[in-house]
Amino acid sequence: MSTASTSKRAATRELILDRALEITHARGLDALTIGTLADAAGMSKSGVFAHFGSREELQLCVLEAAAQIFTDEVFVPAVRERRGLPRVHAILEGWKRRTLRLGENRGCPIGAAAMEFQDRAGPVRDGVMAYVMHLRKEIARSVTLAIDAGHVRADTDAHQIAFEVHGLFLAFQFEVKLVGTERAIGRVEAGISRLLDAMQVH
Amino acid sequence: MSTASTSKRAATRELILDRALEITHARGLDALTIGTLADAAGMSKSGVFAHFGSREELQLCVLEAAAQIFTDEVFVPAVRERRGLPRVHAILEGWKRRTLRLGENRGCPIGAAAMEFQDRAGPVRDGVMAYVMHLRKEIARSVTLAIDAGHVRADTDAHQIAFEVHGLFLAFQFEVKLVGTERAIGRVEAGISRLLDAMQVH
Repeated sequence: MSTASTSKRAATRELILDRALEITHARGLDALTIGTLADAAGMSKSGVFAHFGSREELQLCVLEAAAQIFTDEVFVPAVRERRGLPRVHAILEGWKRRTLRLGENRGCPIGAAAMEFQDRAGPVRDGVMAYVMHLRKEIARSVTLAIDAGHVRADTDAHQIAFEVHGLFLAFQFEVKLVGTERAIGRVEAGISRLLDAMQVH
Repeated sequence: MSTASTSKRAATRELILDRALEITHARGLDALTIGTLADAAGMSKSGVFAHFGSREELQLCVLEAAAQIFTDEVFVPAVRERRGLPRVHAILEGWKRRTLRLGENRGCPIGAAAMEFQDRAGPVRDGVMAYVMHLRKEIARSVTLAIDAGHVRADTDAHQIAFEVHGLFLAFQFEVKLVGTERAIGRVEAGISRLLDAMQVH
């Protein structure tokens, strides 16, 4: 294949993937079929099949794309911050920003896929649970660096903090829809403060 | 209609609803259609239609049945406990027991429906969000009673506690599947302790 046709192929794939992400946002990963995607992208089913060999492969690619967006929005900006508490704060700020960007009318596609697929054995479940685990480990790692930097108490359980942070953000996503953005921000910030205050060196 | 046929009708409805709950547990509320349910119940579509006039009505009835089970498992036993901290503890114990009963292979149908429908305007979204709100208010009420009883600090924000409890249990449900029951119990108990210790009168 020539370079031009390779890059055209890559661009088409990206365009299809964008439509696939939109469908997933609106209706969940389970609503994503080769057929609904072909309709949304204005292509034939065989055109979509040429890029994604199966529905499962398609779902895994969408998951990967959604995970990449999370990483770009939350973890990448945080790495620019100093190791320790500044980086922990930057991750939490990034996650808050992301949840607010998704807003009152859209949920996190990874969280939704995790709820949808957590009880259905198979590669999609494995993929989404692996990403949730990865996300949790990244948070725990940032807390461990904060322990090493002497910013937080040495007896802090980094994995426990990651677990509780995950819970706060799961509840935050609901809260935005339940009571609106402003009150939801107050709740998640109060929860984060309590969590961080408890582990701080006094 | 005679009393006998009324009770037969009610029994049939309950049987259909049981199958509907099973489908929802396994595949989510979105997978529940009159057709899949008729197959699962060994009935004709028109037989199911005679009990539930539309797919939406069916989904709302399943949601109501799932909410009733939550209430029976979590809130009803807690009401037998003394107002204040004993009742708060009983609610949290009940919720933990329920999550463990659902186990590593099944999720909470209400949580799953909330994730599935939170971004789709309509009666099903309204129904599930109203139940999540109700659940949160029940927890907040139990905390308020604990304030009144002098068991917890007077400046405790009952709604903030309810928000954080919700988060801990959302994360707990994931945790059971991510790291197994035993470690998950340790995490949720540590989170609850930290939350309750912070509001206790010292």
